[in-house]
Amino acid sequence: MRVSVICTGTELLKGTTVNTNLAVIGDALSCIGIVLSAAFNCGDDLEALKKALVTAAADSDIIITSGGLGPTKDDLTKTAICEVLGLKMHRDQSISANLAAYWQGKGRSSGLDEQLLQADVPENSEALNNIVGTAPGLWVSGRLDDRDIIVAALPGPPAELIPMLNNQVVPKIRALCSADTFTRSFMVAGAAELLVQQEIEPVVASEPLETAYCASVEGVRVFISGSDKKLVDEKYTTAKKLFGNKVLIDDLLSLPQDISRLLRQRGMTFGTAESCTGGMIGAALTDLPGSSDIFMGGIISYANEIKHHLLGVSQEILDSKGAVSRECAEAMVRGATRVLGTDTAVAVTGIAGPGGGTDLKPVGLVFIATKVNDQVLVTENHFKGDRAAVRKRTCAAALLQLRELLLEK
Amino acid sequence: MRVSVICTGTELLKGTTVNTNLAVIGDALSCIGIVLSAAFNCGDDLEALKKALVTAAADSDIIITSGGLGPTKDDLTKTAICEVLGLKMHRDQSISANLAAYWQGKGRSSGLDEQLLQADVPENSEALNNIVGTAPGLWVSGRLDDRDIIVAALPGPPAELIPMLNNQVVPKIRALCSADTFTRSFMVAGAAELLVQQEIEPVVASEPLETAYCASVEGVRVFISGSDKKLVDEKYTTAKKLFGNKVLIDDLLSLPQDISRLLRQRGMTFGTAESCTGGMIGAALTDLPGSSDIFMGGIISYANEIKHHLLGVSQEILDSKGAVSRECAEAMVRGATRVLGTDTAVAVTGIAGPGGGTDLKPVGLVFIATKVNDQVLVTENHFKGDRAAVRKRTCAAALLQLRELLLEK
Repeated sequence: MRVSVICTGTELLKGTTVNTNLAVIGDALSCIGIVLSAAFNCGDDLEALKKALVTAAADSDIIITSGGLGPTKDDLTKTAICEVLGLKMHRDQSISANLAAYWQGKGRSSGLDEQLLQADVPENSEALNNIVGTAPGLWVSGRLDDRDIIVAALPGPPAELIPMLNNQVVPKIRALCSADTFTRSFMVAGAAELLVQQEIEPVVASEPLETAYCASVEGVRVFISGSDKKLVDEKYTTAKKLFGNKVLIDDLLSLPQDISRLLRQRGMTFGTAESCTGGMIGAALTDLPGSSDIFMGGIISYANEIKHHLLGVSQEILDSKGAVSRECAEAMVRGATRVLGTDTAVAVTGIAGPGGGTDLKPVGLVFIATKVNDQVLVTENHFKGDRAAVRKRTCAAALLQLRELLLEK
Repeated sequence: MRVSVICTGTELLKGTTVNTNLAVIGDALSCIGIVLSAAFNCGDDLEALKKALVTAAADSDIIITSGGLGPTKDDLTKTAICEVLGLKMHRDQSISANLAAYWQGKGRSSGLDEQLLQADVPENSEALNNIVGTAPGLWVSGRLDDRDIIVAALPGPPAELIPMLNNQVVPKIRALCSADTFTRSFMVAGAAELLVQQEIEPVVASEPLETAYCASVEGVRVFISGSDKKLVDEKYTTAKKLFGNKVLIDDLLSLPQDISRLLRQRGMTFGTAESCTGGMIGAALTDLPGSSDIFMGGIISYANEIKHHLLGVSQEILDSKGAVSRECAEAMVRGATRVLGTDTAVAVTGIAGPGGGTDLKPVGLVFIATKVNDQVLVTENHFKGDRAAVRKRTCAAALLQLRELLLEK
């Protein structure tokens, strides 16, 4: 079963809105063993939308669209579907009655005519119930170039799209297809893409399996796919074992989620002392709901005075070794657990650039200290890239280093 | 100039990764007055990638690709470009030498052959310097169906793509556009899109000018474009004056940059006390190079113990009013300037959700306190949206509130 996606909306092309719908749809289909064939973004433009439908239809059995179902003049998805599939539009009396009741229930007298445009549906279509907004989704059956094609048209707002996708569209697609491809994935923390590939390829070689690798500052995500579920499971298990502790506990978790779980398992609390990252590590941890049981807080010690007064880094270290030094990082992490009253902490101090570098202490030099109970580990790191990259890599490396220490406990 | 985008990577279709690159590219081009014609996502599959290139080329002068430039076998972008445009691949000796030096500098002996695949480039191409990773980008000139076409191939990791896009690709595209359209833009902080539009439209009405509005949590960015540079400049100046102090000082600056400049002008220092944002405000300020002259640091007071012990919020306030209260926010901001020794500070405490809300204190309730010298302002805010949205709106609102106080000084 080949499925592709068309996301409409000029705001996606202007960069005003990040397209999260595509990831939501891709993820939901992955869970039933389907990898999207392709995805298209087009503006609120009838010709562009028709062209995307024709292009997508050439390689798909099902096309899922998001957006363009509302009542305003830039909502063109239904018109495009009708024109491409040669279907007529008609007003659905049941949807129309619901919309009128809703609109009048809001005490509004004008604007109903435009609202009722949402009750116009292509022939051969089934309405999908919208539990959040007013625009129903549509499941349209048609033919193009002598092939059957289904278009599942969903509203653009994620709050409306997600329940409609999960509760109505995914079950319909699942019923249509025998799940003929299975995928499993896992994350190897702090590893290089090429080295991970070199380890894994011998394991899957000569088997009818596909592998893919996705690298980030946190590590490498590995995908193993095939039509034989038992074989996929078996090789996934073998491949995962190659990397021991480096594999994150749960296949779908991120590094901060993994750290949170390791801390929770050990009943430990966590705090931060951040210089060059200025709060990014704290922000990453508190991005997760319910983090208050393990994350107590942190000191953003950007100025040396804060390192000295709040974290207790001695003036002697600051004067003789400097703020970007192994000694300062260690004093910072010791200060953090003491001041914040936590079992564990990370401290980072470095030169994110573009200014502030010297021959001895170049841009990208970052000292990372981690402490778990009485054990302290300090590393000297040299990160490449611009300011944003150095800071992002520092966050990932600090959490990876904490993870190593936690796993020893 | 018609520009389209192809983002490669099976992880984008599987939903493992949200495609933020498209928004970054769309936004960067919007700033030079170009709205993307279309965008495609395809997996790490040679045929799919070639088809996307052919489809995109039919309606584009320039195609920007992201991803598929690395050294592993699923990195196929260069091969696809060569096959579609009929170009030969050759090994670039200078890139090759750099890669070998880098690889050997890492003390690695094996795997160099595969690394050197990154030095293979299509003929008629210019390498784009990668300041973060090892894979260079490419600016490839070719012809397809008797038309000139340029493919700008960028690496997939955002940390590598963003500097290459902004520093190399956007200036090249800008130089290619005959400058027949002039655009000026400015940012109105903390304003609603519709109200800004209602003020500006009368000013530009009846003139041959185009306007666009781009809303974000920080405010509304206004674009005025036209072919008559003098007229664009004149109406830009008039329109800007309508909003007085609400216009950020410099047209291209972000809100944190504007705050930094206002602080610097006044010779004031700044610190933070963050609860529900967990370090995001500090991270936003320190994202800017050279922020150490105005930003001293902050206390991430996620746990009540930290609010009490480090910021001096009294136990009585915490017990009787709770951590999410006007009184706690005020005590936090007073604690922040005292403990951090700064002239100004912001403090935020609220319920980001999804859990932790009650009838009296629902999810989205955030108290923001700002202090400039002796003046303190505390506001009660109700932000809509999920956890990420509430946190993002809180950061923006805190900086906007500090800005208001700073402008009075």
